[in-house]
Amino acid sequence: MKRAFAILLAASALAGEASAQEAAPTVKEDFKPSSLNQPGQEYPQVNSQGYVRFRIPAPEARNVKVSLGLGGRGGTVLAKADDGTWTGTTAGPLDEGFHYYRLTVDGGTFNDPGTLNFYGSTRWESGIEIPAHDAEFYALRAVPHGNVQQVLFPSPSTGTQRRAFVYTPPNYEKNAGARFPVLYLQHGWGEDETAWANQGHANLIMDNLIAAGKSRPFIIVMTYGMTNDIRPGSPGGLASFDIRPFQTVLMDELIPFIDREFRTLADPRHRAMAGLSMGGFETKLIAPTRLDKFAYIGLFSGGTFSLDDVDKVAGYRDKVKLTFVSFGSRELENGGMVGPPGMQKADPRANAEALKRAGLNSVFYVSPNTGHEFLTWRRSLREFAPLLFRD
Amino acid sequence: MKRAFAILLAASALAGEASAQEAAPTVKEDFKPSSLNQPGQEYPQVNSQGYVRFRIPAPEARNVKVSLGLGGRGGTVLAKADDGTWTGTTAGPLDEGFHYYRLTVDGGTFNDPGTLNFYGSTRWESGIEIPAHDAEFYALRAVPHGNVQQVLFPSPSTGTQRRAFVYTPPNYEKNAGARFPVLYLQHGWGEDETAWANQGHANLIMDNLIAAGKSRPFIIVMTYGMTNDIRPGSPGGLASFDIRPFQTVLMDELIPFIDREFRTLADPRHRAMAGLSMGGFETKLIAPTRLDKFAYIGLFSGGTFSLDDVDKVAGYRDKVKLTFVSFGSRELENGGMVGPPGMQKADPRANAEALKRAGLNSVFYVSPNTGHEFLTWRRSLREFAPLLFRD
Repeated sequence: MKRAFAILLAASALAGEASAQEAAPTVKEDFKPSSLNQPGQEYPQVNSQGYVRFRIPAPEARNVKVSLGLGGRGGTVLAKADDGTWTGTTAGPLDEGFHYYRLTVDGGTFNDPGTLNFYGSTRWESGIEIPAHDAEFYALRAVPHGNVQQVLFPSPSTGTQRRAFVYTPPNYEKNAGARFPVLYLQHGWGEDETAWANQGHANLIMDNLIAAGKSRPFIIVMTYGMTNDIRPGSPGGLASFDIRPFQTVLMDELIPFIDREFRTLADPRHRAMAGLSMGGFETKLIAPTRLDKFAYIGLFSGGTFSLDDVDKVAGYRDKVKLTFVSFGSRELENGGMVGPPGMQKADPRANAEALKRAGLNSVFYVSPNTGHEFLTWRRSLREFAPLLFRD
Repeated sequence: MKRAFAILLAASALAGEASAQEAAPTVKEDFKPSSLNQPGQEYPQVNSQGYVRFRIPAPEARNVKVSLGLGGRGGTVLAKADDGTWTGTTAGPLDEGFHYYRLTVDGGTFNDPGTLNFYGSTRWESGIEIPAHDAEFYALRAVPHGNVQQVLFPSPSTGTQRRAFVYTPPNYEKNAGARFPVLYLQHGWGEDETAWANQGHANLIMDNLIAAGKSRPFIIVMTYGMTNDIRPGSPGGLASFDIRPFQTVLMDELIPFIDREFRTLADPRHRAMAGLSMGGFETKLIAPTRLDKFAYIGLFSGGTFSLDDVDKVAGYRDKVKLTFVSFGSRELENGGMVGPPGMQKADPRANAEALKRAGLNSVFYVSPNTGHEFLTWRRSLREFAPLLFRD
């Protein structure tokens, strides 16, 4: 009786969500385990439409919820089966690409034991991958691979040894005389130095671009942007953020370390900085003030450069060889205006076009059918990398 | 009333365990967050005696248990407080070093959201560190650091690109002409290629040994030993294990890749193989059959070499420069006899001494007050590395 009631309740909740829009399409029963599951784990599963099905053993639990729901939001309430597992399917499909999520089991936050873990929202979260139609560009393929190196660099300003991950391109070791340009690539709020490799597949994206001859080989440096002490989304948050601790680590400690320890081309024509979300915010705060170091700038869902911004920086027009700004299409659904909570909104496309009309190398890229999420940023890197270090 | 009853129940359970031995010592209230907690997480905590205190928010749960208990076994049942958190302290101290663990929340297996994750027992587990009196040898210190490189190598035998982690010693990049010996270092059953760096701190152990001039700098290669498809501890398990798939990957694919991609000294005098637990079992199956490749062999809680074993291998006495066998002291509490379940027991100390009397370079090391756990193996690496590649 209890079980029938629980199922009825769950079913009506799902039906309620579906009837709030047009009649829901039939869910295709072609579910496969997510590519981000732990070895041997059958669940969670994804179907060809992007629906996600969960299965969590917790025989004595009172309630189990998943944070992913319709379009990735709203959550999915699971129902308990006779065998003690809690199951359910999202009410609608999720966008292509990577999504963080977590479980709430009897009011406590836990991860889905079926998935690998990914650092975001200041915790190691569960993650799911909805296969994208263009997934080949970040697939693990039979091409020469670069290495992702964990380095520990001394940081007197923070009194410790700090960690960075350094992507060295294929054949870096063997081309013992060659020197390479460097991209400093930052993560977003709540993430850390593992994000671009783990969630972003930056190394595989570069391996594939280089194998296809679409990008010049270069080094990528990924360190923690010291982003996570501010409160997310709060109006005071970003405005109160002090860039100086991270700027000191980056400019005074990490860049000199990288130039000492790796075979880099250590001049601004061969150094880029980019970041996603708050990492873009940091890039915009740092790079234009250090045009003696950087000539390529990228903001991925992380701000925009107006002509005013450019004119405030002496030498910007002459020295910056690329101003790249990107967003996911869903982020531009508010009349094309973007901006962090509590801060002024701007029109990034209009800004990019103004820079272009003013004669700057300004590139604006929109990732189709994705939001403020990692597929937007994988695609942004795919678009950005081929433009770097060409002149 | 309910809460008082629950606390009484938990207290009597703890008291019951304590009175089963001599009167329990006073638990010192000097608990500190474990060094393996996620950033910002206060719990779990460890005190100076090695007791562990847990705190898990799950306000509607019926029961929450932790797999760590007295001496690391038996589990700890947590009690619910008014604020909806489940708390408890282990009934006794745990051994120094690293311990895997998991939660059971209402019958479901979940990780403690307070800790980082570590791959063991074929899942990403929670982990806790009991500070060891000799922890300095694996501490992150202000010395030159090597890099831990993720490499992807082609494996036709398994139809994919496989992953290995490669430790390159400090200044590997800058000593552009220098070539280095290589240690192939395997993990145990249930673990994977992340174990030696994540749980083992192999890179920090080597950084510190090299900085102190105690070890020659060398490269360490850590890949997945293809161990996890057999059932743990079952009598048929190890006996039914087929070494050939992994042997093919190691000998035909990984070693040639490493010799191509890194500046190695590619001869047996400069190549070692060692492993922990099932990784030692694999080492014993492979290395003696390939003395054209390896001259140094190490088994960490992973078997023993008898004089019979040695005499069965043509050329062993002449070609093998070091036979290193180690165990944790607690593993030798059964009259000094060891052996996998269902297989013949042996006396590793007696065996090591027999090899020594026969004129081989035979080293036997026992880690004090540790069992079949990672501090035994960190210490084993610390003892083994300085003996390598000296002749």
